[in-house]
Amino acid sequence: MNFLDRLAEKRYLVDAALDRYLPGADVHPAVIHEAMRYSVFAGGKRLRPAMTLAACEAVGGDPGKAMAAACAFELIHTYSLVHDDLPAMDDDDLRRGRPTSHKVYGEALAILVGDALLTLGFGLLGRSVREHGCRDGNALGLVEDVAEACSTMGLIGGQVMDIQSTDRQADPAELEYIHRTKTGALFRAAVRAGCILGGGSGQQLKQLTAFAEHFGLVFQITDDILDVVGDEKVIGKPVGSDTRNRKLTYVSLFGLDEARARARREAELALSALQGFDTKADFLRQAVQFVLTREF
Amino acid sequence: MNFLDRLAEKRYLVDAALDRYLPGADVHPAVIHEAMRYSVFAGGKRLRPAMTLAACEAVGGDPGKAMAAACAFELIHTYSLVHDDLPAMDDDDLRRGRPTSHKVYGEALAILVGDALLTLGFGLLGRSVREHGCRDGNALGLVEDVAEACSTMGLIGGQVMDIQSTDRQADPAELEYIHRTKTGALFRAAVRAGCILGGGSGQQLKQLTAFAEHFGLVFQITDDILDVVGDEKVIGKPVGSDTRNRKLTYVSLFGLDEARARARREAELALSALQGFDTKADFLRQAVQFVLTREF
Repeated sequence: MNFLDRLAEKRYLVDAALDRYLPGADVHPAVIHEAMRYSVFAGGKRLRPAMTLAACEAVGGDPGKAMAAACAFELIHTYSLVHDDLPAMDDDDLRRGRPTSHKVYGEALAILVGDALLTLGFGLLGRSVREHGCRDGNALGLVEDVAEACSTMGLIGGQVMDIQSTDRQADPAELEYIHRTKTGALFRAAVRAGCILGGGSGQQLKQLTAFAEHFGLVFQITDDILDVVGDEKVIGKPVGSDTRNRKLTYVSLFGLDEARARARREAELALSALQGFDTKADFLRQAVQFVLTREF
Repeated sequence: MNFLDRLAEKRYLVDAALDRYLPGADVHPAVIHEAMRYSVFAGGKRLRPAMTLAACEAVGGDPGKAMAAACAFELIHTYSLVHDDLPAMDDDDLRRGRPTSHKVYGEALAILVGDALLTLGFGLLGRSVREHGCRDGNALGLVEDVAEACSTMGLIGGQVMDIQSTDRQADPAELEYIHRTKTGALFRAAVRAGCILGGGSGQQLKQLTAFAEHFGLVFQITDDILDVVGDEKVIGKPVGSDTRNRKLTYVSLFGLDEARARARREAELALSALQGFDTKADFLRQAVQFVLTREF
């Protein structure tokens, strides 16, 4: 099966689980549940939860045991998008082709939507720990692991530097920091969680962690590239916003050709980190190729 | 020892622990760590963490084992204040006598500060689970328990109703919902966490949960009263903001005398929930009296 079909299969399962985990749009206070669902079911690729499930499969685990954690990563990812889009941050009107949360529900509710998605995400990780935590010590540390990835040393730290990086001197070390934290940390945590909940060995966790770090960089570099050469209709958000906002990106720093070369290099490193894994890791391998050549 | 001395003792320990758990103001990216510390070390009473430690002591546990969780409640409480104060929400300029986070660091960073405090709070709860979770099943569910308290059925749900309740028809059921969720849920979770980490029995957990629910109501009713009759210099924030914002409060709904009567009734219920507990629960008993008669 090709990658997009396999991703669609995982996406179907993830969406069904997200629908179960999110409070219904009729549950009191209804407006926030409607707003949470508006942002979660806005047509995302579900790449992070898919990577959790795939990492679980790669080490021979039952992906069902990683589903709550997989959904947590999509909720946390969505929280970060909703807050990043706010007028005080990137001030984006469109996301995945639709008006952003604050355009539809107002700024106050959009802030609370983000807070609620993050909170629900940690609740689901807590559930995974309760259900599987005492089997091994790594699973017991899952919430801490993800909290670290989402912290000011990870996701939030990246966003802090990102909002400060506009109009700044180009600095490769700073760019690397932003990308490692802002995008990389969550991919890393998502893959690690799948490996841990699948019962992967210490060696497998080490390899999959390295895989995820390179994979995250491929994803972020191609994201920077798409902001310059992408098709607005295919991506679902306006292109050129990085340039307009004078963001520090791989393209602004190194130019398009060098950015592409770096993406290819990171893709090779991601693939070679999977050495020794059998065909159960093929989804992860295909994911690298997909992200390297993606148009959205 | 009187209550304020005992609270000061706990506060000292909590502040030292918070100082250890929060990244230093010189850690990269420094500005957010400085901003997190600005809001956390703004002179709060530390009542929530004190209640966690006190509940742990009340069941004969070692409060040191509950310290990380206790700090988590202070961080989560501070996150909710920072986000509630934002221009899009209550638009408050002062908190605990000092300019609010967004007045000092700007709106974007204040949003991220709240996000970061919530995330660090869950990280510390995850740490508690890792260290103590496999001793009993209740401790293993700690992260889920707190996530529920902070969810759209708890803290966030209360805030949603609160921002929507301005200028609305007075409705006692709605007021009860806001207070149970917005303030009560976190006190409830804080006390429960202390009991669980202290190794309390099922019966003790049941009693302390009831205690915390009544205690939370005493706290919220007296908060409403202070907004009307309090001394701005003692409270550290402007009084009368509920009236100006036409918030639904116990005073606006029932008048000052009936609000005071209700606070006394809830205080009695809180105290009677502690029946059977020995003198190790005296801090909790004193806390009820303190909150009932507080001036800040």
